[in-house]
Amino acid sequence: MPKVAVVMGSDSDFEVVKKGIDILKEFEVECEVRIISAHRTPDAAHDFAANAVSDGIEVIIAAAGKAAHLGGVIAAYTPLPVIGIPIKTSMMGGLDSLLSIVQMPKGVPVATVAVDGSENAALLAIQMLSLKYPELMDKMIAYKEKMKKAVEEKDAKFNI
Amino acid sequence: MPKVAVVMGSDSDFEVVKKGIDILKEFEVECEVRIISAHRTPDAAHDFAANAVSDGIEVIIAAAGKAAHLGGVIAAYTPLPVIGIPIKTSMMGGLDSLLSIVQMPKGVPVATVAVDGSENAALLAIQMLSLKYPELMDKMIAYKEKMKKAVEEKDAKFNI
Amino acid sequence: MPKVAVVMGSDSDFEVVKKGIDILKEFEVECEVRIISAHRTPDAAHDFAANAVSDGIEVIIAAAGKAAHLGGVIAAYTPLPVIGIPIKTSMMGGLDSLLSIVQMPKGVPVATVAVDGSENAALLAIQMLSLKYPELMDKMIAYKEKMKKAVEEKDAKFNI
Amino acid sequence: MPKVAVVMGSDSDFEVVKKGIDILKEFEVECEVRIISAHRTPDAAHDFAANAVSDGIEVIIAAAGKAAHLGGVIAAYTPLPVIGIPIKTSMMGGLDSLLSIVQMPKGVPVATVAVDGSENAALLAIQMLSLKYPELMDKMIAYKEKMKKAVEEKDAKFNI
Amino acid sequence: MPKVAVVMGSDSDFEVVKKGIDILKEFEVECEVRIISAHRTPDAAHDFAANAVSDGIEVIIAAAGKAAHLGGVIAAYTPLPVIGIPIKTSMMGGLDSLLSIVQMPKGVPVATVAVDGSENAALLAIQMLSLKYPELMDKMIAYKEKMKKAVEEKDAKFNI
Amino acid sequence: MPKVAVVMGSDSDFEVVKKGIDILKEFEVECEVRIISAHRTPDAAHDFAANAVSDGIEVIIAAAGKAAHLGGVIAAYTPLPVIGIPIKTSMMGGLDSLLSIVQMPKGVPVATVAVDGSENAALLAIQMLSLKYPELMDKMIAYKEKMKKAVEEKDAKFNI
Amino acid sequence: MPKVAVVMGSDSDFEVVKKGIDILKEFEVECEVRIISAHRTPDAAHDFAANAVSDGIEVIIAAAGKAAHLGGVIAAYTPLPVIGIPIKTSMMGGLDSLLSIVQMPKGVPVATVAVDGSENAALLAIQMLSLKYPELMDKMIAYKEKMKKAVEEKDAKFNI
Amino acid sequence: MPKVAVVMGSDSDFEVVKKGIDILKEFEVECEVRIISAHRTPDAAHDFAANAVSDGIEVIIAAAGKAAHLGGVIAAYTPLPVIGIPIKTSMMGGLDSLLSIVQMPKGVPVATVAVDGSENAALLAIQMLSLKYPELMDKMIAYKEKMKKAVEEKDAKFNI
Repeated sequence: MPKVAVVMGSDSDFEVVKKGIDILKEFEVECEVRIISAHRTPDAAHDFAANAVSDGIEVIIAAAGKAAHLGGVIAAYTPLPVIGIPIKTSMMGGLDSLLSIVQMPKGVPVATVAVDGSENAALLAIQMLSLKYPELMDKMIAYKEKMKKAVEEKDAKFNI
Repeated sequence: MPKVAVVMGSDSDFEVVKKGIDILKEFEVECEVRIISAHRTPDAAHDFAANAVSDGIEVIIAAAGKAAHLGGVIAAYTPLPVIGIPIKTSMMGGLDSLLSIVQMPKGVPVATVAVDGSENAALLAIQMLSLKYPELMDKMIAYKEKMKKAVEEKDAKFNI
Repeated sequence: MPKVAVVMGSDSDFEVVKKGIDILKEFEVECEVRIISAHRTPDAAHDFAANAVSDGIEVIIAAAGKAAHLGGVIAAYTPLPVIGIPIKTSMMGGLDSLLSIVQMPKGVPVATVAVDGSENAALLAIQMLSLKYPELMDKMIAYKEKMKKAVEEKDAKFNI
Repeated sequence: MPKVAVVMGSDSDFEVVKKGIDILKEFEVECEVRIISAHRTPDAAHDFAANAVSDGIEVIIAAAGKAAHLGGVIAAYTPLPVIGIPIKTSMMGGLDSLLSIVQMPKGVPVATVAVDGSENAALLAIQMLSLKYPELMDKMIAYKEKMKKAVEEKDAKFNI
Repeated sequence: MPKVAVVMGSDSDFEVVKKGIDILKEFEVECEVRIISAHRTPDAAHDFAANAVSDGIEVIIAAAGKAAHLGGVIAAYTPLPVIGIPIKTSMMGGLDSLLSIVQMPKGVPVATVAVDGSENAALLAIQMLSLKYPELMDKMIAYKEKMKKAVEEKDAKFNI
Repeated sequence: MPKVAVVMGSDSDFEVVKKGIDILKEFEVECEVRIISAHRTPDAAHDFAANAVSDGIEVIIAAAGKAAHLGGVIAAYTPLPVIGIPIKTSMMGGLDSLLSIVQMPKGVPVATVAVDGSENAALLAIQMLSLKYPELMDKMIAYKEKMKKAVEEKDAKFNI
Repeated sequence: MPKVAVVMGSDSDFEVVKKGIDILKEFEVECEVRIISAHRTPDAAHDFAANAVSDGIEVIIAAAGKAAHLGGVIAAYTPLPVIGIPIKTSMMGGLDSLLSIVQMPKGVPVATVAVDGSENAALLAIQMLSLKYPELMDKMIAYKEKMKKAVEEKDAKFNI
Repeated sequence: MPKVAVVMGSDSDFEVVKKGIDILKEFEVECEVRIISAHRTPDAAHDFAANAVSDGIEVIIAAAGKAAHLGGVIAAYTPLPVIGIPIKTSMMGGLDSLLSIVQMPKGVPVATVAVDGSENAALLAIQMLSLKYPELMDKMIAYKEKMKKAVEEKDAKFNI
């Protein structure tokens, strides 16, 4: 079974993060949820990231706000792909979180999604995993089809 | 052999994009390079994206500037993971490109790297592929080790 | 009868978009309302845009938020003028939507109005149509006169 | 013959504006070029705008930088469609010009294109005029086809 | 008696503007209040500004939001000092209003105060008038003294 | 003879400031030029500001960059009108300087002009002084007329 | 006993500032709380700062919003380290306060913490004092340990 | 002898950082210079920070650009005060570096100075150390006096 770790910098991020976890479960991806702070529990960040491969984790999602270092700190310690979710803040709607995550220097990428883009982080993880697990690509195609139908139905109500 | 497509919105983006292509070649990843404009050759974008899976492409990198729709347009037509490189512009250093790529709405993610972050786009693609191709993960680990050594050597010169 | 299409990326945009539709109706412009997502129903976007001329549409208004690609995607497939309404978001008050729409690259313009500027999008469409339909220019002149009167009345209450 | 007026706030804007004038000429659109400052020659702005319809002008393009009021001031005095070109400045790459033009209040739109987007302003004017002049729509379709070919040729060189 | 005109672009700005009017009255400065839109009643703006000197007005305060052209339009038609109040908007907290007012091109200044800075606009007008009316400078000195006392009293409560 | 003080935070600002000084001289306004740093020579700032009235100064222009406190610090110590020139920096084109000057809290205004807007600071000072010195208003009217002529001449070259 | 002064520009900042005061008390640091406005009570700012050393103050925390000059003005008059807290405003979430504090020119630093970062200002003051007072470093280590435990406990609830 | 560590994320930052090192040497503060990357040599960052106290380091200065995590990562592992220097980038003049450093979450402060503010980082470190080393406060007072004299001399040339 494919396995993703979802890490938050604070339990206050859970409301946003939960939406992505629900999608991972809907796709039957195993999901390890952790609260790890790059600044308050740096050793936990190290241990988690350094052991991620041997723990069977294949993709890591890291959600953090403000000076959001969590994704970068984890990416420093693992060869696995790391997806960063910038959490919305009152500083220009989360521009601080976004720039702290997306502007990673050369050598250590963090795949960044939209501010509060928890669902897209999950879908991106699934797209990555689908390279290895063909059944996930089938589910992804079905998911896109379902989204399409939902928009078409709404369109049909307006387009009379 | 793993295969990545690298798509640019304009050949003026090639100077930036080339740095990532070099990394892909260094990792012996097959690399298809295309110039496709979301707005000037939308049919090419459709055809490319709709056929990417059957063409054996596994990850797509899309580089574009200003109202950078290329990554999103491609992601709309394929279940494959799409990585977006925002090209630097004179509008706040590429904030236009960055926001046009990273702020994708729910359902269709584009994995965004730093402005002009061509190397990181390549490394992220390799990290995704390494889920399926274990030899790539070995190379990634070696690459990180090499980066570490390079910094340590520089540090040694200062830290006397 | 002149004909405008008003396209939204999501039905959540309707509250904003409706104000413009009301103006179009007030000017007796035929109005086709659609929900089309550049990313979730890209084929619908293609079909709509590619057929717009033959469907008798003369101006297209496209409202979208965040990485707002809808206007650009439609403009890629039609020679008709396309007006873009950036929908307000929590990312700097809609700067993401604005830059994603206005910063279109050379060759494919999208006529951009203010964030949430639904009424102005409608009035701009009417100004375009009035080149062909002289009665619309008469109505536009009357509309401007009415606006003027409304401000003058308010001014009169203060200016005693 | 269709007629467009191209107005600049300063002759220092001409280098940018010229690119759009060249496109208008390429499409055989008559082109009146003016230097009018909203703040230094406000009466000229008034006279120009108030007489634009009777002077046979059908679309107005206004280029200005910084607190770029020119488009708005002209739009206040005419029912014709007004297109605004924000000129690049050193203030965040022209964000001052862009916001001063695009954020027009309800009732008086200015169709805004990208910062320094002179060519797109011209193309947008042509799209507006093509509602009335069918030969312009044919030319616009041919122009789009030519752009497509140019990208395809560049793509062909890379895609071997 | 010294005389200031306070002009708003819309009666929705009155709540902010009123605070400055109260200060002008407190300083016994005659105050003409007007609602004039640069875009909806441009002729009123012209007439007001062109006649301001002969109407005995000595300083003009202009409050406007979004693409806030009112101050600039008035300043174009009068040699009197014009003070601009940027009204808060949802676009980055009024950055659109601020840049549209403060970034006036060379030759036609608008003295800009903080976003929603109605009181400071009034105080600035009074400082200008005090060059001519010495009793206003005395009142200004007293006003500064009163402010100082108010802060000192609050400080005294904390500083025990 | 009317008298203005022009204060800079650093002699590196002189290139910008000089343009305004030249205008003041052109209008035959006496001009005291000072280099005073709010942070390095705070006592000089205090002494200058506290004595400005008795020294016969009528308007103060203060130019500073980055965390540009100079205008505010001077305004704290004098009832005279203070005009602030934000000096361009590499931080978003001088947004730091602009916000540090314009966002003055309630009670102590600084009349802010455009980034590097030295000429407009001088003209604004002249407009303030012209309330007291009628000959300055005559010169201001002539200056505006001259600007108008200059634009009209340039316009005449284009408008053939 | 170590001693810190906490200065606010306005009593409306107290709600934010209080959280830092509570931390200082928790660490048994003596705490002088003042309301001093750089612009309304500049003499108080001078007297406070000039006498801070002789009053036994060792670190100064200054909280202010908008054009937040308080920290800089105090730093100008004292050799003591000054910590600045930018107070959140509606202008881009406090970017005005942040830039007004952090962008201090060469020679007079203000140690800036996050917008509304009152707790971190207190902790930073404690870290500074711990250079001299070893018992504070012990408490700081314990504080970090306590924070770590709190995160670990939350993590334990999720990580099952 | 007091001891400061100056850490850079990359040797390309040395040109900026050197200016601060020169000041530390001028004040006879021992200075350990290191190149440590939060992302490429995370173990070195850990080892450096965890051992800083026992290595006799009293203050740490960390310079980094873009997603500048270095200061935060070090602060996570040490109770010592950490000063962050945001290095200028092409993304809005270093706003990415600034926000990544200054917006640290509650509990782990990084004392942030201006973009490229290397000298001020050094002076801030000296101010912190001067709490423990009285001779440094004397030197700091002398340094401020010297700065004052330098400005006064420049002022004297202008103020004739």
